Amino acid sequence: MQDSLPDDASLLLEEVELGVVLLTLNRPDARNALSRALIAAVHREIERLGQDPKIAAIVVAANGKVFSSGHDLKELTAHRPDTDGGQAFFRETMRACSSMMQAIVACPKPVIAAVEGRATAAGCQLVATCDLAVASEAADFATPGVNIGLFCSTPMVALSRNISRKRAMEMLLLGDALSAAEAMACGLVNRVVARGKAQAEAVGMARKIAAKSKATVAIGKAAFYRQADMPLDEAYAFASEVMVQNMMKLDAAEGICAFIEKRSPDWKDA
Amino acid sequence: MQDSLPDDASLLLEEVELGVVLLTLNRPDARNALSRALIAAVHREIERLGQDPKIAAIVVAANGKVFSSGHDLKELTAHRPDTDGGQAFFRETMRACSSMMQAIVACPKPVIAAVEGRATAAGCQLVATCDLAVASEAADFATPGVNIGLFCSTPMVALSRNISRKRAMEMLLLGDALSAAEAMACGLVNRVVARGKAQAEAVGMARKIAAKSKATVAIGKAAFYRQADMPLDEAYAFASEVMVQNMMKLDAAEGICAFIEKRSPDWKDA
Amino acid sequence: MQDSLPDDASLLLEEVELGVVLLTLNRPDARNALSRALIAAVHREIERLGQDPKIAAIVVAANGKVFSSGHDLKELTAHRPDTDGGQAFFRETMRACSSMMQAIVACPKPVIAAVEGRATAAGCQLVATCDLAVASEAADFATPGVNIGLFCSTPMVALSRNISRKRAMEMLLLGDALSAAEAMACGLVNRVVARGKAQAEAVGMARKIAAKSKATVAIGKAAFYRQADMPLDEAYAFASEVMVQNMMKLDAAEGICAFIEKRSPDWKDA
Repeated sequence: MQDSLPDDASLLLEEVELGVVLLTLNRPDARNALSRALIAAVHREIERLGQDPKIAAIVVAANGKVFSSGHDLKELTAHRPDTDGGQAFFRETMRACSSMMQAIVACPKPVIAAVEGRATAAGCQLVATCDLAVASEAADFATPGVNIGLFCSTPMVALSRNISRKRAMEMLLLGDALSAAEAMACGLVNRVVARGKAQAEAVGMARKIAAKSKATVAIGKAAFYRQADMPLDEAYAFASEVMVQNMMKLDAAEGICAFIEKRSPDWKDA
Repeated sequence: MQDSLPDDASLLLEEVELGVVLLTLNRPDARNALSRALIAAVHREIERLGQDPKIAAIVVAANGKVFSSGHDLKELTAHRPDTDGGQAFFRETMRACSSMMQAIVACPKPVIAAVEGRATAAGCQLVATCDLAVASEAADFATPGVNIGLFCSTPMVALSRNISRKRAMEMLLLGDALSAAEAMACGLVNRVVARGKAQAEAVGMARKIAAKSKATVAIGKAAFYRQADMPLDEAYAFASEVMVQNMMKLDAAEGICAFIEKRSPDWKDA
Repeated sequence: MQDSLPDDASLLLEEVELGVVLLTLNRPDARNALSRALIAAVHREIERLGQDPKIAAIVVAANGKVFSSGHDLKELTAHRPDTDGGQAFFRETMRACSSMMQAIVACPKPVIAAVEGRATAAGCQLVATCDLAVASEAADFATPGVNIGLFCSTPMVALSRNISRKRAMEMLLLGDALSAAEAMACGLVNRVVARGKAQAEAVGMARKIAAKSKATVAIGKAAFYRQADMPLDEAYAFASEVMVQNMMKLDAAEGICAFIEKRSPDWKDA
């Protein structure tokens, strides 16, 4: 499937098995920094996989010791000499990155982060943005932009929607790393596993999701994020109608029948 | 008090002692599934008890091994042959259930779930919706609709307002159960007690609430949910005025005087 | 610096070292109750320090065994004989207190609570409102207004934005205190330290913040609270532009260069 990759092949795509895809950030020598090319590659693959009827769930992992160090500071700094001091390039980069993060949220397939090393700044944001996340004991998490004069303002959008206010503020103001256990305790990741086991655990969760009805998962994931920002009465009116439309799908009819008849469902993904 | 119940007596109502009511879901053979009749009965009793000046707090418990398995799938499925494929019935059911859940939120009396067994789907939503919840070690909690092709979209409204985003997503996407201890750790329940003790603990909390001013509790509960969806400045403007109106009540005058004079207050509930 | 204090010197201000200020609530005989004079003094100092270019972070501590017992009930009660039953005074007081709390949120400098004793009602709200909080093992936290007929409606605004819904409801409806460990587990405080060590720990955090770029910290703190109430797409559009403006600051240029060159940054706070 590498023919769809950009020339620099910054993203490694590998289909592990039917329905589950492993996307591996592959700039280990650059600490998997989110260059514009890597942002574009992730965005494109997420959108493509989101529309691929054979794909049920996506695992995002990384090659090398670092999961991702966030924005590519060298690439950004190279635009300081631009006539506008780099402002246009910075704006395009922040928009491209925020757009990629929102593509993960909008993707009809669940996206699961598998974190073996350090995830910082936009790298930590990527973990927070994924629907689910697995960390190994070797992982840690930080938003240390404050240490280099560039507050992690876009990472905070995802971070503050995952963990409590004071924990988020501590990460953002002090710049220190959370251990995997601390990330688990505060809700940034779902599970902590032994060193070297994050990817296998995340793939296991993806396989489990792949056994469900894709149509149902897509309805549910989209509804989750849409209702999250609504007041309670609107959220209920919206979610109730989602349930009705879900009930009218073939997979709900089949799934409920199979449950009542105590047999395995045969999904039509429709 | 059973004269106010429907013919099928699907809801058991028992006044334990002055001011504290125990509502027991009583369809043990149907895993306390929320049939239309049971939804209507709970809704009606919550509204009636909410207006009853003798009642201070409501405990919701269940007969049998299962707290509640959520919607009554057999009842829903029985409407598949309707000319519209059941759509109108499904819509009425989702609206009725969402309306009952919101009646718990709107009820001026605190509602406390006492969970001894499994609470799934809309049963888990009921626990999330209650103001407080006690679980025994025998309880667990799941939103497994994804397993039968019907994503738990209305349960997620309550669930995602109680627990962190990734925990909620894991419950919704994988369908696995949280133990009582896990539910406690993530904020879905307030307390975990020994098997068989959930109801007694919940009644103890209710008794404690019954010793407060009902007028004050009603002001506070309503204000809590109203301010929750407001931006900070609106929330403060609203809550400040709530405090002023609360100060003008007889019970605030009495309660503050009693506190200053180091005696017990004599509530007028006004 | 005490010349800026009101005649009753209800607030003790002491500059510990360059960039870090310790504000100590100093009404130990009145359990550091938030009288109108103390509310005004805190508000004024927070605003003044927020504009002081030498100040990087503010620690709020308290003299005596109690951190703060909340509103001054004797002062409020003294206005019951007013022709309006005290309503105008109560309204001014609630507005003044809510305005002071929002001044902490709006202050460009991080504000850190150092809690050695009990923090109740508006005293607990003050802890919840601070950006960060340290508790000693001797601290505890309660919103017990319900016990005196005056529900903690303004404290709930800050509390419910820090801790989960059921924990907040339990504190508000039962009025019981959380231990420091419980406050840590639910996200109300960042750290728990040994008795007598809360102030030193908070000052340590403040010193760490003082080593960062003040301009960057100010950008980040303001952005954090503004994006918190936005839906996701608005939050990303807003935060992306914040990042761009932050990139155009001298301190970001310097910080990123220093990072790439592996040297310490030299902040201009601009």
